[in-house]
Amino acid sequence: MFRIGIDIGGTNIAAGIVDESYKIVEKKSIKTKDVQDPSQMIKALAELIKNLMESALVKPEMVTAIGVGVPGTLDPESGKVLYANNLGFEDVPFLNELKAVVGEGLADKIYFDNDANAAAIGEYITGGYSAKNFVMMTIGTGIGGGVIINGKVLRGCNYAAAEFGHMTINFDGVDCNCGRKGCFEDYASAEGLMNLAWDAMNTSEGAKSCLSSKVSSREELNGEIFFEAVRSGDKVAKEILSEYIFYLSEGIINIINIFQPDVLTLSGGITKAADLYLDDLKKLVAKGIYSRNSSKNTEIMLSKGISDSGDIGIIGAALIYKM
Amino acid sequence: MFRIGIDIGGTNIAAGIVDESYKIVEKKSIKTKDVQDPSQMIKALAELIKNLMESALVKPEMVTAIGVGVPGTLDPESGKVLYANNLGFEDVPFLNELKAVVGEGLADKIYFDNDANAAAIGEYITGGYSAKNFVMMTIGTGIGGGVIINGKVLRGCNYAAAEFGHMTINFDGVDCNCGRKGCFEDYASAEGLMNLAWDAMNTSEGAKSCLSSKVSSREELNGEIFFEAVRSGDKVAKEILSEYIFYLSEGIINIINIFQPDVLTLSGGITKAADLYLDDLKKLVAKGIYSRNSSKNTEIMLSKGISDSGDIGIIGAALIYKM
Repeated sequence: MFRIGIDIGGTNIAAGIVDESYKIVEKKSIKTKDVQDPSQMIKALAELIKNLMESALVKPEMVTAIGVGVPGTLDPESGKVLYANNLGFEDVPFLNELKAVVGEGLADKIYFDNDANAAAIGEYITGGYSAKNFVMMTIGTGIGGGVIINGKVLRGCNYAAAEFGHMTINFDGVDCNCGRKGCFEDYASAEGLMNLAWDAMNTSEGAKSCLSSKVSSREELNGEIFFEAVRSGDKVAKEILSEYIFYLSEGIINIINIFQPDVLTLSGGITKAADLYLDDLKKLVAKGIYSRNSSKNTEIMLSKGISDSGDIGIIGAALIYKM
Repeated sequence: MFRIGIDIGGTNIAAGIVDESYKIVEKKSIKTKDVQDPSQMIKALAELIKNLMESALVKPEMVTAIGVGVPGTLDPESGKVLYANNLGFEDVPFLNELKAVVGEGLADKIYFDNDANAAAIGEYITGGYSAKNFVMMTIGTGIGGGVIINGKVLRGCNYAAAEFGHMTINFDGVDCNCGRKGCFEDYASAEGLMNLAWDAMNTSEGAKSCLSSKVSSREELNGEIFFEAVRSGDKVAKEILSEYIFYLSEGIINIINIFQPDVLTLSGGITKAADLYLDDLKKLVAKGIYSRNSSKNTEIMLSKGISDSGDIGIIGAALIYKM
């Protein structure tokens, strides 16, 4: 039996057929910008599903479930996408419309979830975690998250729970695009790290950094260049990293104080350089958590490999029906 | 049938027999300071249970469950209290020892949980909430919380989840007793409000407040006096309240972004004056939450009456076995 997963991202809509061992056996994608409105989106998804099944010679009776990861708030009762900023969707009767066009024998097999929840489901199931309480924190341009409790994903009333990036850790801090100030992702996302580095480079001390000889604009600065500077022993880069790790620890400590998960995993591009900071980060967290005197506490680890491939969104969507 | 609930607090150990309609039919308490160590505590609890049952003429076969709310981290597998700062307990084999002395026919009926979790269970069950996702926030000297998801209390790996008070909302803010800076409870607890008021009173503007004529030391200042000043229209007191509501909203918005609960209830002494600020608080929260464009969001309300009586700890402990 197979499952079909679709991950609706800001750039691509990626879809795949997933087998019993959680491998993608067929994959297709289209550009999100080619889809102009909800009705085009629904048609495009039905088309993707049809094309995938034809290519892989998978018949409806061989499909256990179809799942769609949507970047927005959802209403499980009405099957509506309540709000999806990146897609410009508001109160779209998503599930019902997709069911109407998806083809015979498939309508009853369709599920949806928030994209970050789907990714957490994918990581949790494919990673084989036995943790009863599991938190995944994904550090990219922003910071997202997913939480599994007692084998169920934490969805909240509108499927948009675990929005860790928009937890303020500094109520009079920098302006956040969400309208508040000092959100966790403003400091601890990959973007936050690059902003921190760029600001530091533009001080008299920072001008001496090897970063300043390699990069002449904020756009040229990226994680690869930054972590190379740290590896080369650049003093300024190392100080920036220390400051960044403090911010990251503050958000992680908050989340541990709130969930006390058995396991908290970190994923996203930043974790490729985790050898440079994971030990220090763990020490800061161990020192700061409220339950630090307890002999039982959260284990912090990197997400297992599969989350790096970008396929976790597809696999997770395919597995929504399980959780 | 009856349940027995015991709430171990910093001042009193309160115990009661709770009937099928969640009423306390018999109640006894002892002073926490009269119990010097874990073995005295275990003996005292067994004694309380025995005395309660004798007074109420309740026999072991009439008891469904006995629950103990403990202020600390717990290990469900070993039945140990891992750490309880207020009691000076560390790695105490609490459940096993209590089972050994509790008397015939009762040992298999004993449960424990963190005291804040027990209170949330009590509020949730006795309040008759139908919310799938439920958050209780208790604003007292500190800020505590409890979370119910899909009919189960969120315990975390050591039963100390939902420690909302120790979520930093200002990483370079005031020093917190937990060792970090700028924790939610430093700003938004009853204590936080009183500190805010006292600081404001000690400015040239604040000296004009009616508070300054009523109170001459920090110790004399209390919620009753403060809210009376607000009701009388005192400008300084009203400004302090506005600032306080901002801090409270910042923590509540964080918690909503993280849990997206159907319902978030507020309890604790501060809520007695909620008529003065609840509407403004709700407006700030509605404006700040990340999902504000979604048509489905968290309902904020005051905890139902029962939580004011102090009995909620006993009733909640008696109901631990249900969740």
